[in-house]
Amino acid sequence: MPVNLRAPLPEELHPVAGVKLGITMAGVRKANRRDLTVVTLVPGSSVAGVFTTNRFCAAPVQICREHLAAGPAKRAIVINTGNANAGTGEDGLVRARSVCVALAQQLNLAPEEVLPFSTGVIMETLPADRIQAGLPAAIADAREDHWAQAAEAIMTTDTLPKAASRQVQIGGKTVTVTGISKGAGMIRPNMATMLGFVATDAVIEPRLLQELVREAADRSFNRITIDGDTSTNDSFLLIATHQAGHAPITQLESPEGAALRSAVIAVSQQLAQAIVRDGEGATKFITIRVEGGRHKEECRQVAYAIAHSPLVKTAFFASDPNLGRILAAVGYAGIDDLDQNLIDLFLDDVHVARNGGRHPDYREEDGSRVMKQAEITVRVDLHRGNRRATVWTCDLSHDYVTINADYRS
Amino acid sequence: MPVNLRAPLPEELHPVAGVKLGITMAGVRKANRRDLTVVTLVPGSSVAGVFTTNRFCAAPVQICREHLAAGPAKRAIVINTGNANAGTGEDGLVRARSVCVALAQQLNLAPEEVLPFSTGVIMETLPADRIQAGLPAAIADAREDHWAQAAEAIMTTDTLPKAASRQVQIGGKTVTVTGISKGAGMIRPNMATMLGFVATDAVIEPRLLQELVREAADRSFNRITIDGDTSTNDSFLLIATHQAGHAPITQLESPEGAALRSAVIAVSQQLAQAIVRDGEGATKFITIRVEGGRHKEECRQVAYAIAHSPLVKTAFFASDPNLGRILAAVGYAGIDDLDQNLIDLFLDDVHVARNGGRHPDYREEDGSRVMKQAEITVRVDLHRGNRRATVWTCDLSHDYVTINADYRS
Repeated sequence: MPVNLRAPLPEELHPVAGVKLGITMAGVRKANRRDLTVVTLVPGSSVAGVFTTNRFCAAPVQICREHLAAGPAKRAIVINTGNANAGTGEDGLVRARSVCVALAQQLNLAPEEVLPFSTGVIMETLPADRIQAGLPAAIADAREDHWAQAAEAIMTTDTLPKAASRQVQIGGKTVTVTGISKGAGMIRPNMATMLGFVATDAVIEPRLLQELVREAADRSFNRITIDGDTSTNDSFLLIATHQAGHAPITQLESPEGAALRSAVIAVSQQLAQAIVRDGEGATKFITIRVEGGRHKEECRQVAYAIAHSPLVKTAFFASDPNLGRILAAVGYAGIDDLDQNLIDLFLDDVHVARNGGRHPDYREEDGSRVMKQAEITVRVDLHRGNRRATVWTCDLSHDYVTINADYRS
Repeated sequence: MPVNLRAPLPEELHPVAGVKLGITMAGVRKANRRDLTVVTLVPGSSVAGVFTTNRFCAAPVQICREHLAAGPAKRAIVINTGNANAGTGEDGLVRARSVCVALAQQLNLAPEEVLPFSTGVIMETLPADRIQAGLPAAIADAREDHWAQAAEAIMTTDTLPKAASRQVQIGGKTVTVTGISKGAGMIRPNMATMLGFVATDAVIEPRLLQELVREAADRSFNRITIDGDTSTNDSFLLIATHQAGHAPITQLESPEGAALRSAVIAVSQQLAQAIVRDGEGATKFITIRVEGGRHKEECRQVAYAIAHSPLVKTAFFASDPNLGRILAAVGYAGIDDLDQNLIDLFLDDVHVARNGGRHPDYREEDGSRVMKQAEITVRVDLHRGNRRATVWTCDLSHDYVTINADYRS
């Protein structure tokens, strides 16, 4: 059961001028499933992306990196579900390239103007022929108001589609930022998550896009984890069609740049949090905030240790305030000179531990009250500096095991 | 259900001359539970130990380190279950010390000659009064043939007691090595596991014990993981009573030293593997062997990434050869310059992946056949060096979630 998440209504998703999305059933893995999405971009559009740090990166990720290295001008994106085309060696690269070439031919583009994405089972041969056969139908279906349909077509074990949209005023013009994402398991993005796409019609110098996509990823997709498994296919794209008609943004620090930046980050965070809310088997949405660190990196390290602990995650599932498990995770997070006698632990407003031990006023019933909530904030103060970091995660339930034990059956 | 593990029979555990074990019910957490063990050592015995790297280490671990820093000559060990005395701050230290003092008084020892151990729930106050009240009964119960009873008395979520014993000939004398261990969850020892005790009557220079206990831990308890959660209380002790009557061992490299070393390591490995076989919810015992690394550390890093992946662990539970998940874990293990195109993956005798992609001869039915076994070896060849490492782990099942969601109830 997703935690405080509902499917986006099509009318909530503002179209982005210059972006059209078309969907079809290509029968990649199963019949009668909308599994192929083609996104076309108006000429002049720019794209920047961040990708998985998994050394076993999928063929489409390798090709995206190669095509983006040729420059930010892109015209089309092709996304299939049902097959990740990862762990497929040289053959996987050949097949992913053939899909780009086929789409480029039909749209009269160069193959380098196409970016391919795949998600699904690892180490199976990509049925490139079926994908190629589906391209004409997907192209024919392309419309600016198909964001909700695309959000649905890129799902795998997701139970709900994920999309977010907002508008800001820049230079007297309305600028739109709309995006979609997918992912529910194998989620511990270390660049971006398994498929996030955010598009804007803002007029912005293409050289600023890479900086913006990296910052947005660092503040959204790179701050979530479900099971600690960094995927082979994580990809997050930021697309700008430059159609909004305002004067070009030449600096992210300008008022106009800041307005766009803030909208892009907000949409990215909403999309990233939606992935956690729909995490495989999730029943709780948990914010882990670590404060008082010497640097951000050690705060993240502690936050991830808590977020990945199966014992902490099962305690949340059980609504059991077995909170010593959180202290144990803080202790093994890898900070060699951590002084346990300084640690404070809070569960929402409840002060659980002080100076590394149980707080004298802490009562089990207060811990139980918070643990029963669907959304919980864990706050740890290390008291050794003034830096902080936040990570979002979910609990570990029976359904996680069921879903992942049955995924391919 | 433990994997190929049975309770040791008392007659299989050779007594160690000079070591007596006494057990009683102290009502630490629950009534009518044998939860307190006192081990007495003959005068002249030496002890060495390794302890958790968790910075949030339990009060008894802190006291053990302090007492061992005073020298290896020890005379008594006291172990309680039901309460870990971790995350208990200064008060926890005071209470653990009071138990040592009480035991020392009754045995006419100095408190520094006593080593305390606790296991159970974290962040709860140790009922030192009830433990002290139980000491006389435990002391009265002490006998050399109580190893099996002690193995049972130190269990928490373990379903079976764990013990191992063997004898070797050294200098014409029979030397005994017998040990017990406990642990089933919060297991990713990084020094030793949550309570392992191995004793020998070998005559060995006390200065060699620390080297031997570290090597034995590195080749046994430090090579197992159940859920990646390094406990606050991990402790592994090696006790030598020097009663066997042979000429003293002065070098571990001598034939006599090698015989003892090999027996201690074998007993330690059996005890460590027993913990995995009885891992919380375990249905499979999995050996992960990573070869072809540039150094041992990177082999271990890859082996632990596989061993900790919830996706890999649930696939084993389901007997589902969804083996791309193993490649994904190899990819995110943190070797920055890993070349995915060199990787080989084997499941027992089945060659699953070659050059980073599915092996052309690999058939799903072969993968399925191996995945159905209770014991499975995963072998990964990185093809970038000639070092190797092995880690033992288990699968992630519904019962793991059930056990950890219900542990305190």
